[in-house]
Parts: sequence; structure tokens; C-alpha cells
Amino acid sequence: MTHILHVNSSPRGEGSQSRLVSKELVEAMVAAHPGITVTDRDLGHQEVPFVTEAFIGAMYTPAEVRTPEQKELLKLSDEMVDELFAADVYVFGIPMYNFGVPAVFKAYIDYIARANRTFNPGTYEGLLKNKKAIVVSAHGGAGYGPGQERESYNQLVPTLRGVLGFLGVSDVEFISVEGTSAPEEKRATMMTAAREKIQQIAAK
Amino acid sequence: MTHILHVNSSPRGEGSQSRLVSKELVEAMVAAHPGITVTDRDLGHQEVPFVTEAFIGAMYTPAEVRTPEQKELLKLSDEMVDELFAADVYVFGIPMYNFGVPAVFKAYIDYIARANRTFNPGTYEGLLKNKKAIVVSAHGGAGYGPGQERESYNQLVPTLRGVLGFLGVSDVEFISVEGTSAPEEKRATMMTAAREKIQQIAAK
Repeated sequence: MTHILHVNSSPRGEGSQSRLVSKELVEAMVAAHPGITVTDRDLGHQEVPFVTEAFIGAMYTPAEVRTPEQKELLKLSDEMVDELFAADVYVFGIPMYNFGVPAVFKAYIDYIARANRTFNPGTYEGLLKNKKAIVVSAHGGAGYGPGQERESYNQLVPTLRGVLGFLGVSDVEFISVEGTSAPEEKRATMMTAAREKIQQIAAK
Repeated sequence: MTHILHVNSSPRGEGSQSRLVSKELVEAMVAAHPGITVTDRDLGHQEVPFVTEAFIGAMYTPAEVRTPEQKELLKLSDEMVDELFAADVYVFGIPMYNFGVPAVFKAYIDYIARANRTFNPGTYEGLLKNKKAIVVSAHGGAGYGPGQERESYNQLVPTLRGVLGFLGVSDVEFISVEGTSAPEEKRATMMTAAREKIQQIAAK
């Protein structure tokens, strides 16, 4: 039975396009495949702490000799990693901020990239096997797609491909909703394109 | 008179190579050009809040009609932007985390990319003119440089080039200290290379 981990990272509520479209995607997948279960993680309304020197120390201390304080420091990170292992499909809703992921999503990346849990520090082999990721990104502007004028500015796609690939997830699809600050008409066209892709993915 | 803004982002203290090398660079510049003044900003030991919906609202409210609460929300961001305008040269000390900048540095980027202050939201023109940036990055591994095996993984360099360029800073130099987790001998070679580059930059 498929289990989806749905991670949102926009600090916005109702007005967030990445939230809206990733929700539509998850709902379409559930409608197409009854029995799918979903876990939600909302980074947009949760403080993910920055990596500290103590966190690094705890991460590189073998699990069996960690102090209670070190275990406590890794608690949220462990929980996030457990969620990744428990799911088959990841749906990430991410608004583009200054051409990349919002800082809170980078904090999430720095919490889930864990030596001996999600990657092998000796071989650099990713340990999240047989997973699929779908990234729903929202952009105020437009032209960030392959072959388009602002493609070279787009750090969001290479960041996700690079990090997910490093953790073992090579099956990554992108749905981008562009021009979220564009006039209503243009926005409607963009949403139609995103919805077509949603239907294609849900039908698989 | 040249004024340097020296920004560190490692959560480590003494053990941080990006801190060590960026400090050596600043000291070499000061030694070579007496009269240079320096402002330090330590992101590694400061909480930079994530962008919130209220922060976005405040940022896009014209300055003259902002409420006291909105002004308060933008206070740290305004202070960081003022520092960028007050300096001629930026020295950024950044450890590579999971192929990119640490989350706290992305939080800094999201605080300094300010419509009508550091970029023109209509023309996308950068407003930080005649500035020079030097990025000292530290990498546990090696091979992230131009033409090397892990170059395509390196998100730190494109992130910095993209964002600084967007804000108007096109004169960007990189000093990378690689293999910080390598054996002492190899590390010494890497430091020698970084120090040669420091002397070249300081001599300008």
C-alpha cells in the first residue's frame, strides 16, 4: 500500500500556491488510488532549528554511545528521517525564495541528510531506496523552466535533484507553478498546465 | 577609505575552517592597507528568523505607511541591508552543508534580498553598486572546483553568484578550502593554496 509524505514549506496559509497545488496533487493521487495513506509535515509553521556544533557532534557520535542530551538534540531529525523511510512517495510543496528553496527547507535538508541513516559517509551511497519524489514549486515570476530565459537563475531544481539524488532518490518529478504574482488571467493558464500534470501523475 | 563587512556563518567556533581562513583574509587585507575598517556579523551564533507571512507583508508595504509592528519585523533585515550599503567589500565565510549554503546563510539571503532596497522589483536591477565580494567556503570533501568530479554537486558557488549578481554585485571571488575532514598532511596542502590566494587578494 502506497504511503505519501506530504511536506509543505510555505509560511503562507490560504494564499500559498505551492500549498494549494501540492494539496490538489495529493488529493488526486488519493482519489485515483483508494487506500493510499498520507502523513503531513508542515515546515511553514514549524521552527526547524539550524545545525549547531552540538548537533554535528551528536550526529557523528555512534548511536549506541550518545548521551541523553545528544539523543534529544537529534530527536526532530530522527523523526523526520523515520517519516522518509515510512513513505514510498514524497510530495514537497516549495515556494521559490530568491531563486532557491526557502531557508526553512534548507534547514530541513540539513536535518534529513544524516550519515549512516540516509547516506553512507564512506561510499556516499544514498540509503533512501525505491522512493519517488514530486516537487511542486511556486514562483512569483516566470521563465525558470528548462530552456527558458531565467533557467540559469533556478537554484531550486538543482538543489532538490542534487540532495535527493545524494540520499538515493533519483526518481524526481517537478511541477512548477509560475507567475503567481501575475495578473489573474495569466495565472489561470499556469494553473491549467499544473493541473494537467497533476492528472498525469495521479493516473500512474 | 575601504570598509569591509565580514560575515561568518559557521556554527562552529575554533574548529571552523571558513572562520579561520576568512579571518586570515581580513587580517591580511588590513595589514596590506592600513586604515581599512571592519564590521563583523556572526550568523553562526545568531538566530536569523525565517521569512514569515507577516514579514512578506511588511516588506511589500511602502516604508511610509508601515505600522510600528511591521517596522519592528523588518528591523534586523534593515540593519543587515544598511551594513551592506556601508561596506565596499564583503568577506563571507561559509561552510558547505549538503552541497549548498547552511540554512542560516539562506535565511540571511532571504533577509537581504529586499525589494526597493537591494533590488528594483520592476526592472530586477540590483541596487548594491560598486561592491566586491570574496567568498571563503570550506568543504569536508574535495573535488567541488571548476572542472572537478563533484563540480555539478556544488550549489554553493551558483547560489552566491546568482543571488549576489541579482543584488548588483558581479565582482565575486571564491577561495575554497577543501578536504577539511582529510588527514593533517593533505589539509596542510589545501591551506597553503588558500593562503596563496589570500596574499594575492590582499595585495590588490
